[in-house]
Amino acid sequence: MFDPVEKLKEFIRHPSVSTDPKFHEGMKGAQEFVASLLTSLGFSVDVVKTELHPIIFAQRGGDKSWPHLVIYGHYDVQPADPLNLWKTPAFEPTIVGNRIYGRGAADNKGPLLTNIAAVARALEDDPKLPLRITFLIEGEEEMGSPSFPKFLERYADKLREADFVYLSDTALPNENQVVLTSGLRGLALFDVHITGAKGDLHSGLHGGVLLNPIQALAEIIASLHTPDGRVNVPGFYDAVLDVHPWEREELAKLGADEKSYAEFLGIEAFHTAPGFSPFEAVRFQPTLEFNGIGGGYQGEGTKTVIPSKAFAKISCRLVPNQEPDKIKRLVMDAILARKPRGVKLEFVDQHKGDPYVVVPPDRSNTPKDQSPVLARAFRAAEKAVTEVWGRPPIYLREGGSVPIIAEIKRKTGLDSVMFGLFLPEDNLHAPNESFNLDVMRKGIETTRRMLVALAKG
Amino acid sequence: MFDPVEKLKEFIRHPSVSTDPKFHEGMKGAQEFVASLLTSLGFSVDVVKTELHPIIFAQRGGDKSWPHLVIYGHYDVQPADPLNLWKTPAFEPTIVGNRIYGRGAADNKGPLLTNIAAVARALEDDPKLPLRITFLIEGEEEMGSPSFPKFLERYADKLREADFVYLSDTALPNENQVVLTSGLRGLALFDVHITGAKGDLHSGLHGGVLLNPIQALAEIIASLHTPDGRVNVPGFYDAVLDVHPWEREELAKLGADEKSYAEFLGIEAFHTAPGFSPFEAVRFQPTLEFNGIGGGYQGEGTKTVIPSKAFAKISCRLVPNQEPDKIKRLVMDAILARKPRGVKLEFVDQHKGDPYVVVPPDRSNTPKDQSPVLARAFRAAEKAVTEVWGRPPIYLREGGSVPIIAEIKRKTGLDSVMFGLFLPEDNLHAPNESFNLDVMRKGIETTRRMLVALAKG
Repeated sequence: MFDPVEKLKEFIRHPSVSTDPKFHEGMKGAQEFVASLLTSLGFSVDVVKTELHPIIFAQRGGDKSWPHLVIYGHYDVQPADPLNLWKTPAFEPTIVGNRIYGRGAADNKGPLLTNIAAVARALEDDPKLPLRITFLIEGEEEMGSPSFPKFLERYADKLREADFVYLSDTALPNENQVVLTSGLRGLALFDVHITGAKGDLHSGLHGGVLLNPIQALAEIIASLHTPDGRVNVPGFYDAVLDVHPWEREELAKLGADEKSYAEFLGIEAFHTAPGFSPFEAVRFQPTLEFNGIGGGYQGEGTKTVIPSKAFAKISCRLVPNQEPDKIKRLVMDAILARKPRGVKLEFVDQHKGDPYVVVPPDRSNTPKDQSPVLARAFRAAEKAVTEVWGRPPIYLREGGSVPIIAEIKRKTGLDSVMFGLFLPEDNLHAPNESFNLDVMRKGIETTRRMLVALAKG
Repeated sequence: MFDPVEKLKEFIRHPSVSTDPKFHEGMKGAQEFVASLLTSLGFSVDVVKTELHPIIFAQRGGDKSWPHLVIYGHYDVQPADPLNLWKTPAFEPTIVGNRIYGRGAADNKGPLLTNIAAVARALEDDPKLPLRITFLIEGEEEMGSPSFPKFLERYADKLREADFVYLSDTALPNENQVVLTSGLRGLALFDVHITGAKGDLHSGLHGGVLLNPIQALAEIIASLHTPDGRVNVPGFYDAVLDVHPWEREELAKLGADEKSYAEFLGIEAFHTAPGFSPFEAVRFQPTLEFNGIGGGYQGEGTKTVIPSKAFAKISCRLVPNQEPDKIKRLVMDAILARKPRGVKLEFVDQHKGDPYVVVPPDRSNTPKDQSPVLARAFRAAEKAVTEVWGRPPIYLREGGSVPIIAEIKRKTGLDSVMFGLFLPEDNLHAPNESFNLDVMRKGIETTRRMLVALAKG
């Protein structure tokens, strides 16, 4: 079988930033890398064209009585800027100790390759393994998967033949404790642009006669939270579901330590909605965050202008049963209602995604009609994790978003088994992203055992 | 005599951005251009080295009984960014109709060259003109003249031999009405930097547990004004002097029209401190403005980070008798008092400048000990303006700042006669800066007549 670490290096070297057209070559390289790897494993590979980046749809068929899983992953990565904060080149994989550094190492190239390697090993051991496997690997996850809904419509019938989705695009709390992710937050993103005068003005000649767009924007931003840390938008929390007691019990098993978490983040104090610990807040509460702000002169020294424009990039993380479109509307309405006189305001809509929950077998709220193969997969995963890591997994919702998981559920009815593989210190979406190679090694063995157990029934 | 317009083109072609070391060659070129022009007019030119950009000190001596004026100007310009908003190249002078476009055309290359050309013409007409003239032309005005105080200490004795300072670095309200500027606002500038977590964080994995630095900054910014448009900092207005009735009378002569001004700025509504028209506010009231803001992701699309840092660039325009250091302290103290818990805050100090007023002869508050030569200069300027422009000048304070004018007054006792030459539509400090060539032509003739009248007594 191929060497997973060498293959991961090769994968990282393709700079596959999906949001930036400058990285067209890197996207193509990463897509071809995955397609050819799956072809070499005997998969029948379709590279499905979309309006932007192709989706790889690769199948290993078999008897209709065999369990059928869809392994999801993505070959695109976040932008690497600010580049000056990287200690090693962002797209030149560098191994230091048991970590491999590079953009996409943890999100999602390392975890995806872990699952591909597990499949490769299982099929090497038993080329006749009674298991149908479909790989579904997209190139637009980091931009909100705009082509995915259309793809899903075309491929929904094929996907409905499967039993469940399996993916590693969620987090482990630490390298000794596996989490099977039971929920994901949704997303609602848009930008706010404020315009004052028709051009930048001299702050001496005109200062004192008009409202500065930076001030107008700051007033709006400052109004969107209450001092105690809740989102200050009427109706924002109306659809939020209560947390089930078993979820709090699982979270208690995490034994998470607030002091270490604060030190890890480098903050003096937490700032959570009242009644929630930081570990609860990130899993069970929605947010409204400011991802970026800009306006006027940002260079060294001074430039005494009153800028014409200022903008902010806003994102909400949503929990069941908040609806992204409804939340966007509520937040935009609140912003419009708070717009001061004398400036213009425009929204630029960005992407969105529904929140998602899946309930493992034998819980108080497990659906009565849960797929028996899904239940078997959860139990096989629990057993494999316990064998390889020395302790059972815990089921936790996580704060991140993989919007297509909810999309797949809605369009095909398939639920997802989410085997977390990246660690808090992996620096996802930030400079110096890395992936733990011990986690990768154990992850390959875990998924291999899960696949074999699932196939053997 | 030289052709003033051709000379101005040559001057603009030197990209003399003082704040940016990349423009070292442009600074050198502009400085040598001015020095060699003054040498060609028979001046004895010293290029006085400073820690940064040299000051040109050029003298035409003469009998001690002759009036002696110091003509001030600066050869540096503001940065030209954002370059993509320029319709013609920023450093390639382009004449369209009666305007010349280019960075520095109006601030201060055109007006400075107007006064040099007036001197050239007066000396060509009468090489024995009984007038002592000193040119004092610096290269750091757009960065707050950091080398000027040290220079003033060394040259204070030489400057005290003069009677007054003459300059054209202020504004005309329109091309038919000359203003002799009777006051300038001061400046106090600094940046605020907010830091949250030690690095950018994934807004899903960690969103909801910490205070976003953009939010902290927005809360601070939003707190610095009251809804009615006053600066919301305790003590900010304490030292502000009342306006003299003759100043309001002069302003009434301006016949300024709020509707046209709003259209010129492209705003829907003014936002002035209560009790002040926009024309009064800009002259008689201090401000606190945000010149820039930045933090997090500012590119296309989305990047779902919680940024580690955010910053704002703040500037106050001050009126007599506000003291820049005291105002900085008051504003910084207010900001510190309003810093929310959980983020760090740092200030980066920038430059400052005192406000300035000069009272023309025969006013209720004209100082009893006003220099007779200064009074003669004002009267000569009034007469020259009336002859060339067809109507007398009005005396107005202006909103802009030329901090060295107050500095010269404090160190040498010299007051300034400020003959405004740029127009509101000249786009100072903004893209597509230009200078009106009709104003330049009339300006040359006005200053020439003023010089001759002053010399003849």
